[in-house]
Amino acid sequence: MDPASRLDTLTAICLEAGQLALHYFKNQDELVIDHKGHQDFVSQADREVEALTRSLLEDAFPDDTIVGEEDAPKPGTSGFTWVIDPIDGTTNFINGIPAWTVVVAGVSNGKTQIGVIHDPCNSETYAAKAGNGTTLNGKPILINDQRKLSEGTVGVGYSNRVDGSGIVRLVAGLVEEGAMFHRNASGALSLAYVAAGRLLGYSEEHMNAWDCLAGQLLVAEAGGQVEMQDADAMIADGGRVVVGTPVVFDRLLEISEKAFATEV
Amino acid sequence: MDPASRLDTLTAICLEAGQLALHYFKNQDELVIDHKGHQDFVSQADREVEALTRSLLEDAFPDDTIVGEEDAPKPGTSGFTWVIDPIDGTTNFINGIPAWTVVVAGVSNGKTQIGVIHDPCNSETYAAKAGNGTTLNGKPILINDQRKLSEGTVGVGYSNRVDGSGIVRLVAGLVEEGAMFHRNASGALSLAYVAAGRLLGYSEEHMNAWDCLAGQLLVAEAGGQVEMQDADAMIADGGRVVVGTPVVFDRLLEISEKAFATEV
Repeated sequence: MDPASRLDTLTAICLEAGQLALHYFKNQDELVIDHKGHQDFVSQADREVEALTRSLLEDAFPDDTIVGEEDAPKPGTSGFTWVIDPIDGTTNFINGIPAWTVVVAGVSNGKTQIGVIHDPCNSETYAAKAGNGTTLNGKPILINDQRKLSEGTVGVGYSNRVDGSGIVRLVAGLVEEGAMFHRNASGALSLAYVAAGRLLGYSEEHMNAWDCLAGQLLVAEAGGQVEMQDADAMIADGGRVVVGTPVVFDRLLEISEKAFATEV
Repeated sequence: MDPASRLDTLTAICLEAGQLALHYFKNQDELVIDHKGHQDFVSQADREVEALTRSLLEDAFPDDTIVGEEDAPKPGTSGFTWVIDPIDGTTNFINGIPAWTVVVAGVSNGKTQIGVIHDPCNSETYAAKAGNGTTLNGKPILINDQRKLSEGTVGVGYSNRVDGSGIVRLVAGLVEEGAMFHRNASGALSLAYVAAGRLLGYSEEHMNAWDCLAGQLLVAEAGGQVEMQDADAMIADGGRVVVGTPVVFDRLLEISEKAFATEV
């Protein structure tokens, strides 16, 4: 199947998965009672949304590999790999904050070929195909912002996978630069916001492949800059993610490198 | 008019103002062209939403004082003052991020008596009346969270009204405590999230009255704790805002005091 058809199929799959996730989100108060608590509820939602996404992907692309956050990889023969994050921003999801996304990337030859980030609460679907641009709800989006870091806002993220000193130095570096920072606790949503021109950039010390590959493609295809990584290496270990408008990218990378250096 | 009727009337007014703001937000791409640019567009949206809110309040409560962010105060004779923030989170509004609110508080005798925070993008309306609890879309909400700071997320805010060192120390203090931080760039929305149990607390070095009075009442009436201030003094000068669940409040206040101290 050619990448354009793959992207249309993937977009439809993400919309369907998003409907299921939204059902869990909107009925959390009732559904939590059926579970042992909030943590069990969100695990259940994560598992069910991933299972649905996997099953729809398997039906559409039986020869592809599927890698997800929740379940063991399903091997394939085509050389094409799907990477699923059923609910990115699970802390928001569990806390009732409407800022979480369904994320799927398609990878081959060490490169992300297509990516979708779907925000069910706001009915916004971001989609990109390598070499063919980025769309938001089907309309092309293009980064065209001449502002410097000191004139805008940068998204930041962190997790308990890293020591806290990196994010503190990153925030300090941005504030010193005169930039504002934003942390909405969904890395994928923040990356989508960069693609849509809503944030000047995004920086996080360590993200997993399922959180970042789709968003990095969205930004690159919308005309932004992305710190280069090999997609296969990211699938194996994850890594640092820095993206930005062409105007701010170099400076944001400098600030990030300084913040995340192990020797300070 | 008794406070219960005032609250119903105010809620209806905020919904109408929110519809106008949402019209600007959703048609930003087209409307910006009619203006000199994004900044002029958002100023226009701010002014128009405040003008509508003022006019609806004046019709309903002709004897009350009205104070807004955009326009000069309208004096009244009743001793009751309305404090309007037509669009809280204007940076999000201008950037296209669906996290901004219409905020109105009603003050008398140095105390906030009623408050409404309306989030038009997510159709969520928070309302509180002193002594009578807080509601979200008409349903009572009550803070009941036993987690410590190290087990949850705290909202933070800052603006260019203060030196940047305070927010850097606040983030450092929270990370050191093992808490996560969230910054969605709408202080009022963050305060509403605390009332709804979505964040454990919120801290900001300086907020204006129109940004914080309604949210502080929402939190207090939902069973949270709020650093005490005199509402009239806040209307005059603004001030520090710290709120939290009963479990985290004292520790969050300590961390905030240390972060915002002028002598370090």
